[in-house]
Amino acid sequence: MRKSRTPAPPVDSELKALDAHWRAANYLAACQIYLMDTNPLLEQPLQPEHIKPRLLGHWGTSPGLNLIHTHLNRIIAARGRDTLAIWGPGHGGPAVLANSWLEGSYSEIYPDVGRDAAGMGRLFKQFSFPGGVPSHVAPETPGSIHEGGELGYALSHAYGAAFDHPDLLVACVIGDGEAETGPLAASWHSNKFLDPVHDGAVLPILHLNGYKIANPAVLARLPESELDDLLRGYGHEPLHVSGDDPKSVHKAMATALDTAVDRIDAIQRAARDGKTTQRPRWPVIVLRTPKGWTGPSEADGLQISGTWRSHQVPLADVRDNAEQLGLLEKWLRSYRPEELFDAAGRPTEQVLACIPEGKRRLGATPYANGGLLLRELPLPPLERFAAPVDKPGVSVHEPTRVLGTYLQQVMEATRDRRDFRLVGPDETASNRLDAVYGATGKAWQAETLDVDEHLDRHGRVMEILSEHTCQGWLEGYLLTGRHGLFSCYEAFVHLVDSMVNQHIKWLRTTRRLGWRRSIASLNYLLTSHVWRQDHNGFSHQDPGFTDHVLNKAPEAVRVYLPPDANTLLSVAEHCLASRDYVNVIVAGKQPTYDWLSLDAARTHCARGAGIWQWAGTDDGTREPDVVLACAGDVPTQEVLAAAQLLQRHLPELSVRIVNVVDLARLLPHDEHPHGMTDAEYDALFTPDKPVMFAYHGYPWLIHRLTYRRAGHRHLHVRGYKEIGTTTTPFDMVLRNDLDRYRLVMDVIDRTPGLAVRTAAIRQEMEDARTRHHYWIREHGVDMPEVTDWTWNG
Amino acid sequence: MRKSRTPAPPVDSELKALDAHWRAANYLAACQIYLMDTNPLLEQPLQPEHIKPRLLGHWGTSPGLNLIHTHLNRIIAARGRDTLAIWGPGHGGPAVLANSWLEGSYSEIYPDVGRDAAGMGRLFKQFSFPGGVPSHVAPETPGSIHEGGELGYALSHAYGAAFDHPDLLVACVIGDGEAETGPLAASWHSNKFLDPVHDGAVLPILHLNGYKIANPAVLARLPESELDDLLRGYGHEPLHVSGDDPKSVHKAMATALDTAVDRIDAIQRAARDGKTTQRPRWPVIVLRTPKGWTGPSEADGLQISGTWRSHQVPLADVRDNAEQLGLLEKWLRSYRPEELFDAAGRPTEQVLACIPEGKRRLGATPYANGGLLLRELPLPPLERFAAPVDKPGVSVHEPTRVLGTYLQQVMEATRDRRDFRLVGPDETASNRLDAVYGATGKAWQAETLDVDEHLDRHGRVMEILSEHTCQGWLEGYLLTGRHGLFSCYEAFVHLVDSMVNQHIKWLRTTRRLGWRRSIASLNYLLTSHVWRQDHNGFSHQDPGFTDHVLNKAPEAVRVYLPPDANTLLSVAEHCLASRDYVNVIVAGKQPTYDWLSLDAARTHCARGAGIWQWAGTDDGTREPDVVLACAGDVPTQEVLAAAQLLQRHLPELSVRIVNVVDLARLLPHDEHPHGMTDAEYDALFTPDKPVMFAYHGYPWLIHRLTYRRAGHRHLHVRGYKEIGTTTTPFDMVLRNDLDRYRLVMDVIDRTPGLAVRTAAIRQEMEDARTRHHYWIREHGVDMPEVTDWTWNG
Repeated sequence: MRKSRTPAPPVDSELKALDAHWRAANYLAACQIYLMDTNPLLEQPLQPEHIKPRLLGHWGTSPGLNLIHTHLNRIIAARGRDTLAIWGPGHGGPAVLANSWLEGSYSEIYPDVGRDAAGMGRLFKQFSFPGGVPSHVAPETPGSIHEGGELGYALSHAYGAAFDHPDLLVACVIGDGEAETGPLAASWHSNKFLDPVHDGAVLPILHLNGYKIANPAVLARLPESELDDLLRGYGHEPLHVSGDDPKSVHKAMATALDTAVDRIDAIQRAARDGKTTQRPRWPVIVLRTPKGWTGPSEADGLQISGTWRSHQVPLADVRDNAEQLGLLEKWLRSYRPEELFDAAGRPTEQVLACIPEGKRRLGATPYANGGLLLRELPLPPLERFAAPVDKPGVSVHEPTRVLGTYLQQVMEATRDRRDFRLVGPDETASNRLDAVYGATGKAWQAETLDVDEHLDRHGRVMEILSEHTCQGWLEGYLLTGRHGLFSCYEAFVHLVDSMVNQHIKWLRTTRRLGWRRSIASLNYLLTSHVWRQDHNGFSHQDPGFTDHVLNKAPEAVRVYLPPDANTLLSVAEHCLASRDYVNVIVAGKQPTYDWLSLDAARTHCARGAGIWQWAGTDDGTREPDVVLACAGDVPTQEVLAAAQLLQRHLPELSVRIVNVVDLARLLPHDEHPHGMTDAEYDALFTPDKPVMFAYHGYPWLIHRLTYRRAGHRHLHVRGYKEIGTTTTPFDMVLRNDLDRYRLVMDVIDRTPGLAVRTAAIRQEMEDARTRHHYWIREHGVDMPEVTDWTWNG
Repeated sequence: MRKSRTPAPPVDSELKALDAHWRAANYLAACQIYLMDTNPLLEQPLQPEHIKPRLLGHWGTSPGLNLIHTHLNRIIAARGRDTLAIWGPGHGGPAVLANSWLEGSYSEIYPDVGRDAAGMGRLFKQFSFPGGVPSHVAPETPGSIHEGGELGYALSHAYGAAFDHPDLLVACVIGDGEAETGPLAASWHSNKFLDPVHDGAVLPILHLNGYKIANPAVLARLPESELDDLLRGYGHEPLHVSGDDPKSVHKAMATALDTAVDRIDAIQRAARDGKTTQRPRWPVIVLRTPKGWTGPSEADGLQISGTWRSHQVPLADVRDNAEQLGLLEKWLRSYRPEELFDAAGRPTEQVLACIPEGKRRLGATPYANGGLLLRELPLPPLERFAAPVDKPGVSVHEPTRVLGTYLQQVMEATRDRRDFRLVGPDETASNRLDAVYGATGKAWQAETLDVDEHLDRHGRVMEILSEHTCQGWLEGYLLTGRHGLFSCYEAFVHLVDSMVNQHIKWLRTTRRLGWRRSIASLNYLLTSHVWRQDHNGFSHQDPGFTDHVLNKAPEAVRVYLPPDANTLLSVAEHCLASRDYVNVIVAGKQPTYDWLSLDAARTHCARGAGIWQWAGTDDGTREPDVVLACAGDVPTQEVLAAAQLLQRHLPELSVRIVNVVDLARLLPHDEHPHGMTDAEYDALFTPDKPVMFAYHGYPWLIHRLTYRRAGHRHLHVRGYKEIGTTTTPFDMVLRNDLDRYRLVMDVIDRTPGLAVRTAAIRQEMEDARTRHHYWIREHGVDMPEVTDWTWNG
């Protein structure tokens, strides 16, 4: 365990040095918003031509972030403790960039922005400038794992980073705006899942600067006692730091941080020495400082600092308004840059005094570049877990249950390394992955009762009824170099639509940054899917998450629909070993026929889409009369049953069965790395034969993926048409026209020359649908299945 | 103001009657899960053939919901106060259905399910039965405005219902599972926005039954003092009711409800008499009773009641296992149905004693069928707000600012009626709708400072930095018969993807229920859109919400992209007057050329898509050589600029300009009520000419909407390709190939016969792109615009 000596309270000279660092950071932050590269040290009087033509960025939160960064530097340097900072108000990009430049980590990563006057000029100009760097803390920012543009995820990211990093302190700044969001509000309870033995610590710093874009913040306008009640109710002990006098705030902040870290040390020591198993009351710091602190106090007769008016650019007209330019110059010179930087633009020793060394610097910590810490996941061979399959359609397995036995082994193999977690909103057992409890329990630090099962103070299954918190935890865990899987009801993964957007944007950007190392993919297992919501009905039926992610960067997105147990195993193995993707796996938990042996599954999944010759009447020597395609477990079963019906009723018809596991295969080759060439596509689907495609989700997605293909005009897709309720599984496919009989009718209707001579068969199919319909309504269950699979192969 | 006499504490006979009602509801709830229609009163010994073949539903929460319903009946009857119940654990459908049947409201709406033995049989059989009713509280359930399938929105719905309903009490049951979600956690702070003068009251009832599907609930496992801290921190005063002895729980629950309602009365009286403007501390009831209370305590040696094992169907094998069947019979008979129902199956007088009368019954309140309360919104004439437009492309307006002046008038016109609200996550001013503050302020009950602006204890603009809470408030407001608009940054509306799913599902279902009256549409104004994120960059760029909603029920979804101020006014007027839709309006806030006069805008918007002959060189007498189509403000400007370039460089080319406002017009006629016929589509877009379509969002959406059209193979779409950062507006269109020069190049590349003779023009376009690129990188701003619009018309 790392050192835990408490530094002495700062003496005057140290306070002065801290203040110098803070002033330097404030100067650099303000200048990024305003200045071009021509007068970085204000050696000349400020002129309009020194000012950027577009003033963009967020000043209001920056001085607060700078204060926190300055003081984190102090405790890191004094205690030698690995620390990661999460900047919830990440729109305060200028602050974090300023600090990274001051500590030198910026110039190490971006040598063209050196720690000198020329580099300072570049630092200023590039900010929010076309071809430069984004205005927020972003993937490009050293030390960051968190883009602060979409608010809500700071604290769950912080906990994700802390899990299984016992030596790490994660300082998490939460703005009072972000604190109003749902995801943030839920994530306070993460402390009921933080193991003081195996996990690091999270120190939330609630920064109340009082205002959002245009409104006061709710938490800033509670009486202090009510806010304290709230924080205690969240399981924290508040430490307050307030004021607008820098010297007294520096003192109070140093004391608060020392107190907080001492308490954290004491908590961890007690737990690790086995002296207590009580859930501790972790510290939280409440920092109240004015919005836009140290910025202009007034302009045009209106108060600026201490109000929402300093949220973005407090003086917006400096290029054209001489009075404002004067105010800006006065403001920038108030930091006394000549005391902070030498003539060459290098920060003075006093400014640098508080900065820790090497990888302990917040902009240089490997915890913020998780790929540096990542180890290969020890994946067990699939053979031990695979369903034995001699012939398709004989045995039956619950695919996710089979996957659970595999995941159990992954948990076993990472027992000591502790770098794999399974997260989910109270659904691990419901999703039939409960074999994992043979290897580890569910993380839980709150009270327990004798009747409870699988709760475990040191468990690595994470369950909280908040998809947002699950997602945030897993993102934080992956971004700091570990592995994981999120299992979720298919319909409710839409809750994290917006979060996954941001993660994919993050991955897209980091893939292009040479210094960012690859991280493990974010893997979703979407189960309890649209076709099997027997208990819940319409509200639980939505297969649209795949549509959502396929709008995003193709280089980072993969969607898989394994149709049975062995294909699920093969896909899961691939995804768990992959890097820098968001992998969406849609798979059922209900008993499903086994179609493929493990070997066949591997070959099929590696191809991503293929002909199942054994299931069709297509002999492979010529083009078939018709193609029946499928993606997803339920559609696959219906297509195979339709193929059986066709074989019986229309044995002379040559029917090809194509199964698609990897949805992106359907996209053109130049739009997705997995996309098929037109030749490959035509070889599977033909360029001109009727194709009936039974798809798991909304049918138009398949059209959206294939509209450029020659054969597209012959493509007919069946899928979920947003028709649902609490009913039987077969009634669901009937209602949505995805059933085997309808597919046969589609073949009849769409294969040239077939309609006339097959009217009787068509009528028989129609009758079968009606028969099923009435049987289900009368008996309340599906008709006993009669499919007797007979294959050619 | 309604009566507020406190009823006397219940005497023994009343307690017995309450218990009889509760037992009856429990009996009816359990029987719905298990029984067919053949033995509803258990007159015969229970046999396997009395049991449903599929046992589906949720028992665990039902006895708690029944207890609450029983006691709400008591206070409603005693106090004569209009009350609406929100059943957060709405998966406990059997409980709410049981209560509605007991009070008679069910049979009034569904006469075939009468309040007698035959009706009781139907009540049982139909539950979760194919062709019957869903397992959750659903649109089909009397008294409901809230489907409890997707958890998180109970409390925000409750507040939405209470706003501007001063006489209404909204009792909101929050399960301890739901309490873990982000949206629910955020919505506790809604009390900072509830005006005790003009709004009704919300009484949260936090029901801790201890378990979710498979896990303990976090809030149920906090020490009581910590939970109290939390609730006080949320601004509430907790009242506790705990136990498993029915008699003492009935007593405690009656007392707690009396106390709570007395406090609410006192709070409202003090505020309405002007005696205080202090934010009150509203009561909250914490109800701790066992999960599956009164159900089987044990089966197969495992504890059932009081654990997660009673979440759904506690005895799952009753049809095949005689011992379980015996346990079920014992369980059902434990309610002593023979005391609760007469021989004809009618509830006894004792059971009915607590039930209020007529429209005060929870299943009959018009507040739960908001269309009954809805009044036409008094919409002012648009003429006063329209931008004067003599010629396209001369004047410039910020469309949302113009809309703001109109909304101000809507606020004025509803000043006394108080049935219109504007919600948004701290963005009303940022989205330039701040003219509304001329008519009303921002609702705010927390502390204020002198420097604050537009905060108003009685305001009807609602701002909290939680899109979830905004959406929940507005849904609750609309569902109880009022009007509203949600203005949101386009990218972050994805936060409510899952919520809007549920609302659309609700609308789809209610449209088919004769007894549900139409409600006002849910209107979104998405602004601060993808093309103008100058301050924020990539994290704020996502136009995918339209893709998301267009997956849902077409009868309930509309998407509009007005290209200028007057079209925005026309679309907004239409949406605000509409019913039962989700309307998504995407419009810019930045200065935009005015293209259409108000009259022209009205005509164009009524058509939804049309030819702008004045902007093209298509004389209307024959098919053009090429069509330039656009949807959205930025694409429209680029298309018109491209048309100007073509006019200058290729004057002989006949170019038609088509603008699409109503996106669903592109869909086939039989897939959306707004969809064009093929003839209409071809008349606009031609069946065989090249069409360059510049679209606001992801380009493949346009393909997804049009793939069935004859001309689709000639369609080329430009849009947002997920390429973004902090940069200038023109750089954004350049990077995504949506700029005017690229569009001209597209025309050249795709119009047969044009490529060879126009190589020089194409090169000129390419050069212009390069010139812009370098200018922007050098100067940090876009090149000054030189377009001099010259029109034919």
